[in-house]
Amino acid sequence: MNLRAFNKQIYLSLGAFVTIVVVWLAGFLPSAQTTPANPLPSWNNGATKQAIIKFVTRVTTANSPDFVPVEDRIATFDNDGTLWAEQPVVEGLFVLEKIKAMVIAAPSLREQQPYKAVLMGDVDYFRRKGEVAITELAMLTHGNVTQTQFEVETRRFFDTATYPKLNLPVTQIGYKPMRELLDYLRANGFQTWICSGGGIDFMRQISEPLYGIPPQQAIGSAGKEEFIEKEGKFVIWKLPELSRINDKEGKPIGIDLHIGKRPIFAAGNERSGGDIAMLTYSHQQQPSFQLLIDHDDGDREFAYREPDNASLNAAAANGWHVVSIKNDWRTVFSHVNPHMRASDSQA
Amino acid sequence: MNLRAFNKQIYLSLGAFVTIVVVWLAGFLPSAQTTPANPLPSWNNGATKQAIIKFVTRVTTANSPDFVPVEDRIATFDNDGTLWAEQPVVEGLFVLEKIKAMVIAAPSLREQQPYKAVLMGDVDYFRRKGEVAITELAMLTHGNVTQTQFEVETRRFFDTATYPKLNLPVTQIGYKPMRELLDYLRANGFQTWICSGGGIDFMRQISEPLYGIPPQQAIGSAGKEEFIEKEGKFVIWKLPELSRINDKEGKPIGIDLHIGKRPIFAAGNERSGGDIAMLTYSHQQQPSFQLLIDHDDGDREFAYREPDNASLNAAAANGWHVVSIKNDWRTVFSHVNPHMRASDSQA
Repeated sequence: MNLRAFNKQIYLSLGAFVTIVVVWLAGFLPSAQTTPANPLPSWNNGATKQAIIKFVTRVTTANSPDFVPVEDRIATFDNDGTLWAEQPVVEGLFVLEKIKAMVIAAPSLREQQPYKAVLMGDVDYFRRKGEVAITELAMLTHGNVTQTQFEVETRRFFDTATYPKLNLPVTQIGYKPMRELLDYLRANGFQTWICSGGGIDFMRQISEPLYGIPPQQAIGSAGKEEFIEKEGKFVIWKLPELSRINDKEGKPIGIDLHIGKRPIFAAGNERSGGDIAMLTYSHQQQPSFQLLIDHDDGDREFAYREPDNASLNAAAANGWHVVSIKNDWRTVFSHVNPHMRASDSQA
Repeated sequence: MNLRAFNKQIYLSLGAFVTIVVVWLAGFLPSAQTTPANPLPSWNNGATKQAIIKFVTRVTTANSPDFVPVEDRIATFDNDGTLWAEQPVVEGLFVLEKIKAMVIAAPSLREQQPYKAVLMGDVDYFRRKGEVAITELAMLTHGNVTQTQFEVETRRFFDTATYPKLNLPVTQIGYKPMRELLDYLRANGFQTWICSGGGIDFMRQISEPLYGIPPQQAIGSAGKEEFIEKEGKFVIWKLPELSRINDKEGKPIGIDLHIGKRPIFAAGNERSGGDIAMLTYSHQQQPSFQLLIDHDDGDREFAYREPDNASLNAAAANGWHVVSIKNDWRTVFSHVNPHMRASDSQA
């Protein structure tokens, strides 16, 4: 081999070696901005998917006029009907199960309201009493308990409960396309939050394994609490009183309390108009993206509509993006949830 | 040059080049776990500094029996007297300035309480009326305003206000050793939070530039809010009513509301017993570390003591680490704050 050939070979080796080092080191680089070729595989390749990708590309492209710095990439998601099924609402199953357990522990409750109405399936009782009775029920089952004990009860529920109509563990009723969307946003530097009418302590037990959202990024309805001494130990004691309801106009307030920034991406669903205020609040920020899920797939999920159509009307008036489950989602449920680990988290 | 010499030189060049590439790329690697040789340069090399480093090493060393996973490395810090000076409390300066501005805008207020008492420096008025009058004052200056307008007022204050006794901009009264401690904890995978009796919206305007703590990691006292339409636009409207006070027993409750996890590191200071509950709450978690600052340096900062000595007594009884500013801190204030950028954040 002459010197020139040797020289060339060394440089080729050098090039190959540097390439290997660079590729190897690149594996340690922060993953933001590195999005797989097809980031939302469970979404059909329609207008909604394209609009999501276009928006994310717009706000994450450096030097673009719509570039949003990482610290302002806040995304908020409703939970029931947006991240998982809500026919029935999962927390309602927990309430039912706990009422039964309370009656077994103290049988005299069987003749008292609202226990009696729950056990008899007396829907009329709750229709008559209205929202007050629902709140009372929630507080009875979420209060008069230490935070630690409530966590134990909640985890036990998530480890064992079955979702009736789908006949699946409750931990397997999350929407696969929405989990992909959460992952996609996080891969692009977004901080993802739950903002739901559900109980904050209840959701926190599954937000990480189901959605990759840590407990401190859950916003929900909350009861009053006290820090008091019980049997020689200070505990967080959950009172059977409501502190705040994180629904409708309560959602922007909850976002302001917990985040202090407007979300540039917000997702909700139609059923009760519960997400209109949150989407309105997000929409005031520009650039921003609003997503509203329309439950129009009775075959694969559930088909239902808001009586007054307020959410879909607001979406049409404001240009929010409507997800048709039937047309936009290739797959609805994952049925197997590799992320679930409720039982082994924070024992 | 013979082949062997050439060969050697190429390999030396190759080695040097790879080193350059590696060093250059290393600059992009996540900084967690990479702690400088002397992580707390403004701390004297005494027992407190050693205890901090020993604890952080213990909980971050893989395979150690006391290893704590990154997601549970929560650290909470009181603000007034713990991260910056509190003689007087900075938010009190804001209240005073705003009351003056309110009277200029509406001169008839001059004859009304509590405006009159504030303008006359009538301390007796507030002593007579007690905590109710202080709360009223806070609500008058923090309420009846949109969240956006309040942010503008707060930022203007931070851009212009001078801290009286130190004759420094209020943005330069942070404790340098505590900023180093925050940086050190973050470099070791901790998530750092403020947990203060101060107003949450007030602190959020400076938590990032002063302490490297994003707005969503501030926990504080909060007023009630509404999401309402004003002049054709929906706004967060701050009501002149208190929602919750994040002091004393309110601190564990605030931590539970915003984080949902117990801090394994908690820092406060003695003055009013305001941090005893937070440190007690943190201490129940093991392993954990509690820090209490004793203001014992009248020369470089301020010397003051709690009348009943409750915080220092609790520290002694529980083995919490007491910081003597006089002995533990080599430097107290940075006087130049390279992190400050309140005026250019989120316009």
